[in-house]
Amino acid sequence: MPFNDKIAEAERRVERWLTAELARHSAAPERLLAAMRHASLGGGKRFRPFLVIACAGVFGVAPEAARGAAVALELVHGYSLVHDDLPAMDNDALRRGQPTVWKAFDEWTAILAGDALLTLAFEVLADPAAAPDPNVRTALVLALARAAGAAGMVGGQCLDLEAEKLGTPARPTVGHIARLQAMKTGALIACACECGAILGRADKGQRMALERYGKTLGLAFQISDDLLDAQGDAAVVGKAVAKDAAAGKATWVALLGIDGARRKLVETEAEAIAAIAQFGAAAAVLEEAARFLSRREK
Amino acid sequence: MPFNDKIAEAERRVERWLTAELARHSAAPERLLAAMRHASLGGGKRFRPFLVIACAGVFGVAPEAARGAAVALELVHGYSLVHDDLPAMDNDALRRGQPTVWKAFDEWTAILAGDALLTLAFEVLADPAAAPDPNVRTALVLALARAAGAAGMVGGQCLDLEAEKLGTPARPTVGHIARLQAMKTGALIACACECGAILGRADKGQRMALERYGKTLGLAFQISDDLLDAQGDAAVVGKAVAKDAAAGKATWVALLGIDGARRKLVETEAEAIAAIAQFGAAAAVLEEAARFLSRREK
Repeated sequence: MPFNDKIAEAERRVERWLTAELARHSAAPERLLAAMRHASLGGGKRFRPFLVIACAGVFGVAPEAARGAAVALELVHGYSLVHDDLPAMDNDALRRGQPTVWKAFDEWTAILAGDALLTLAFEVLADPAAAPDPNVRTALVLALARAAGAAGMVGGQCLDLEAEKLGTPARPTVGHIARLQAMKTGALIACACECGAILGRADKGQRMALERYGKTLGLAFQISDDLLDAQGDAAVVGKAVAKDAAAGKATWVALLGIDGARRKLVETEAEAIAAIAQFGAAAAVLEEAARFLSRREK
Repeated sequence: MPFNDKIAEAERRVERWLTAELARHSAAPERLLAAMRHASLGGGKRFRPFLVIACAGVFGVAPEAARGAAVALELVHGYSLVHDDLPAMDNDALRRGQPTVWKAFDEWTAILAGDALLTLAFEVLADPAAAPDPNVRTALVLALARAAGAAGMVGGQCLDLEAEKLGTPARPTVGHIARLQAMKTGALIACACECGAILGRADKGQRMALERYGKTLGLAFQISDDLLDAQGDAAVVGKAVAKDAAAGKATWVALLGIDGARRKLVETEAEAIAAIAQFGAAAAVLEEAARFLSRREK
């Protein structure tokens, strides 16, 4: 099956799972549920759940058995976009070619919908349906909370906004942007891979290899995002482009130039592939995923 | 020991625990940590952690063994206040006699600090330090996520803001306000009691009794809050008063009048006490807690 079809299959599966998950919560106010659906359904690359499924698959775990973790990762990703888009943060009106949640509803609904999506992610992981063994479930909760929290995704968004709104640090170094992005984007992508390893009852070395793969992949993802922002077509990308440069953000393109960023992307792709060499043919789809990032157009 | 001293002891203990918990996260940006500390330390009645400790104590669980759950409940309570105070929500500048987080920092920092506190709560619960048995930890995570999420606390805040900002429903009934507050305030207070029961390995009947106690106590808490808002002194309460009436909120006082609300508070107190009759002397402190609410001045 071509890689694009594998991604499309994961997209359909995750859409179906998220639809079912959000339909279970009829005790919640309808406005809140509508905002949560707006944030979660009808689009998105579903890259994180794809990685959960693919990494669990390295150990022979079936996609259905990775369902809870895949859904949780996408719920957290969705919440982070809802909050990041708020006027007080990135002030984005367009996402996946649609109005963002605060545009479609209002700010308070968007804040609450994000809060509810984040909380739901942990409800899903703690539910016995996510994994029969409670040790696996607590390991998933712990991995996700660490990756999404103050020392991970939320911390990275804080560093990003400190740079943009407060101008600190005055001259961001490559080291600073690498740390920022490792937290903001890399941590959750690495967590997706780690969750696959946890579900697969990987040994320590295997889990570390998949985490390293995820971290490197996260970096490749961010570099390709920066390249898309600098060169992409808004109609294809589905959101505003050339926004980072306008905001004076310290992107890989700003630091290294287009050619430098492209070279770094190719190097990073090779590193990601090297990290999973030990798994051989079982990790073929992960190798394809790494190669895919340097070719993506949206 | 007089009840006020027991509450004061829990306050000191929880302050110490929260300080230690927030000091562990040095990998997070300092601005974010400062906002999280501002939100969590230096005040608050610590009523939810007090209930976790007290309910666990019914089963002979020592306060130190309830530490993780107590801290998690207070982190979630703290996050909810940070987000509720935002300009897009309740637009409050003062909390516990101090500037709210968005006033002391800014809106984006407050949104992120709330997100990070919520996420940290689940990290704390999933950590083996919260309880050695993974079954207990996942039960705690599940209980907290359900209570704090779309069908619980966040859903209640949504109903509250729908009433205030959108004027729906046009004529709130007693049933509507009871549902709203059961979600917004009651769910987390009931969860605190439930977590105590989980830590104490309560049987189903015991757990349900403590949940019922918590729900009733949550209602009493809200009625007393409404009475304080209607009659309290801002200098004693430590936040703006008479705000609910000004905002046209459907409070118990607005629905039943001062005397009616006082009567309902007394009835509710009796119901809470009846719910824990089966525990006898082991639940004496819970009985005191219920009586305390109808006498509190802040």
